[in-house]
Amino acid sequence: MGEKSFLGTDFVAQIGIIVKDIDKTAQAFADFFGVDVPPIKWTDEYDKAQTHYKGNPVESRAKLAFFKMENIQIELIEPDENPSTWREFLEDHGEGGVHHIAFIVNGMKQIVASMENENMPLVQKGGEYDGGRYAYMDSFGQLKVILELLEND
Amino acid sequence: MGEKSFLGTDFVAQIGIIVKDIDKTAQAFADFFGVDVPPIKWTDEYDKAQTHYKGNPVESRAKLAFFKMENIQIELIEPDENPSTWREFLEDHGEGGVHHIAFIVNGMKQIVASMENENMPLVQKGGEYDGGRYAYMDSFGQLKVILELLEND
Repeated sequence: MGEKSFLGTDFVAQIGIIVKDIDKTAQAFADFFGVDVPPIKWTDEYDKAQTHYKGNPVESRAKLAFFKMENIQIELIEPDENPSTWREFLEDHGEGGVHHIAFIVNGMKQIVASMENENMPLVQKGGEYDGGRYAYMDSFGQLKVILELLEND
Repeated sequence: MGEKSFLGTDFVAQIGIIVKDIDKTAQAFADFFGVDVPPIKWTDEYDKAQTHYKGNPVESRAKLAFFKMENIQIELIEPDENPSTWREFLEDHGEGGVHHIAFIVNGMKQIVASMENENMPLVQKGGEYDGGRYAYMDSFGQLKVILELLEND
């Protein structure tokens, strides 16, 4: 990692994959890697999640499943029908493919500001799940993949 | 990792991203992570690479750049115009997005056979670069991402 890194880290914590049928894909992952199917859970409702997409509060939710690999987490995401970065990706690119790679950061506000200054706008944010929050940054134009910033208290 | 894992590993060695202009995207990654632009190199010609796509020898090549992150390698891939798994992904999904995740395996032949037996066919293979070889397995239907197997002597 260079001193001029925007994120202060180059540890890729997570790969997020958009799917249409999370039960089916989670079962396929479990079978393939010889592990149990992890819990499949809805993201929180708006009251708790405070999800904002392109600056507006949204009811959008997704079902999530997490597979713990040796060096990284694979997140399966099945979006609901409401507008979100997940739904938009599904509509633009079809099922499958990696929606984002995630980094755990400190000082998220400053990083969001510095990325927005470089034309990588905040596209969706939410929290406060278990004292943490996330921000998806639209770095697709530059880096050809969306980055997710994760910050925990 | 479970005992019944197909791969014998759950270490994700690499994330491969398809791009249209590798010079531009490699520069953007270098700027973002505060590192030097790595060498950008063409894959070998057929005589050396012995590239096969869907069972047939092909002249297809790609320009590659590798970024070493703390826990994983990010590979940028700019395919040429010839038919390949890279080109097909670009045409099906557009630029950007993750084409594959890669695992370093032992006993590639047996793993390829066991995956083909589960309807995850070998889609492209090549080698022998520096005593190594690769196989892209079409696990997209099941896992919503292509897997690459890497084997080194």
